[in-house]
Amino acid sequence: MSAKLSNETLEQLFTKARTHNGWRDEDVPDALLREAVDIAKWGPTSANCQPMRVLFLRSKEAKQRLAPALLPGNLEKTLAAPVVAIVAYDLNFYEHLPRLYPATDARAWFAGNDALIAETAFRNGTLQGAYLLLTLRAVGLDVGPMSGFDKKMVDAEFFPEGTVRSNFLVNIGYGDPAKLYPRGPRFAFDEVARIL
Amino acid sequence: MSAKLSNETLEQLFTKARTHNGWRDEDVPDALLREAVDIAKWGPTSANCQPMRVLFLRSKEAKQRLAPALLPGNLEKTLAAPVVAIVAYDLNFYEHLPRLYPATDARAWFAGNDALIAETAFRNGTLQGAYLLLTLRAVGLDVGPMSGFDKKMVDAEFFPEGTVRSNFLVNIGYGDPAKLYPRGPRFAFDEVARIL
Repeated sequence: MSAKLSNETLEQLFTKARTHNGWRDEDVPDALLREAVDIAKWGPTSANCQPMRVLFLRSKEAKQRLAPALLPGNLEKTLAAPVVAIVAYDLNFYEHLPRLYPATDARAWFAGNDALIAETAFRNGTLQGAYLLLTLRAVGLDVGPMSGFDKKMVDAEFFPEGTVRSNFLVNIGYGDPAKLYPRGPRFAFDEVARIL
Repeated sequence: MSAKLSNETLEQLFTKARTHNGWRDEDVPDALLREAVDIAKWGPTSANCQPMRVLFLRSKEAKQRLAPALLPGNLEKTLAAPVVAIVAYDLNFYEHLPRLYPATDARAWFAGNDALIAETAFRNGTLQGAYLLLTLRAVGLDVGPMSGFDKKMVDAEFFPEGTVRSNFLVNIGYGDPAKLYPRGPRFAFDEVARIL
């Protein structure tokens, strides 16, 4: 039986963590990106399907390939971030199920069922995207996730093979608190949840 | 600048946390469910839209309403769990944006655009669902998420007003380690991610 995590930990992950818009001039080591992925991979997915795929754009050249697909309001902060991640999901995820979920023939649940493939890839790729946002925070980084971009343009540029779909972007670095916006209000428990 | 969280914390949230199938005979206080929601609400969503809605089924009566929608393989473990959460999302989320995101008229981005509404509700409701899985673990509980159920039946039974859609289920309690399955393999970093 586990204890409740400390307030300091919950602050770092949730209660005081913010979506950052400005970045301090400080490098993000590759090792931290790898570590965040290697922790997030342990989060649960349906039938262990793990559809998330990630490109971390660090070089100026890679970020310039992304720039035309960004909304004008997201352009400057994204090009200024030390790293920008494209969080995506692979519609061919089910081809890996014989290895990832050997207990049964889970591949057969999906093959030929495009609607179930798309829904499962989006749901589980998004769950994994949330795990990654939190493990980036867990290794000491700040994040600025965004879904305002042209997904078709990103997919054509970065995933031309045609089976991987972009889901959302994440600016990654060490945030500049001076550039934070006021924090938005959150729903109270009783507005969004009930115990029956 | 934050430090990296401790190994013990990462184990509780990710690296040693497991999807549980059996439950110890120990009650789950309402206060812990409320606390998990009240921490998870601080996780980021697009334009602070917070589309997740949650029903926690604790009573025998509430769980029996869910039973007909469960896959046979999920039935026994779900009825045996102290609490079962229906994680859902509200397609009318955008009506709350004037309050949740007062900086601009974000409601206008969505009104009349059903495809964008559905995609945004599903993506952000799923991100919030992942936050909730992790905050349930953070307050010391174990979880067993599942997407194998009849969503149309659940929606008709629990969300008859027609704008809320079920997303996934979560068994919640204190897990019985004796009933765990072997842990599935995870992808290595270089199989699913690249740094450009």
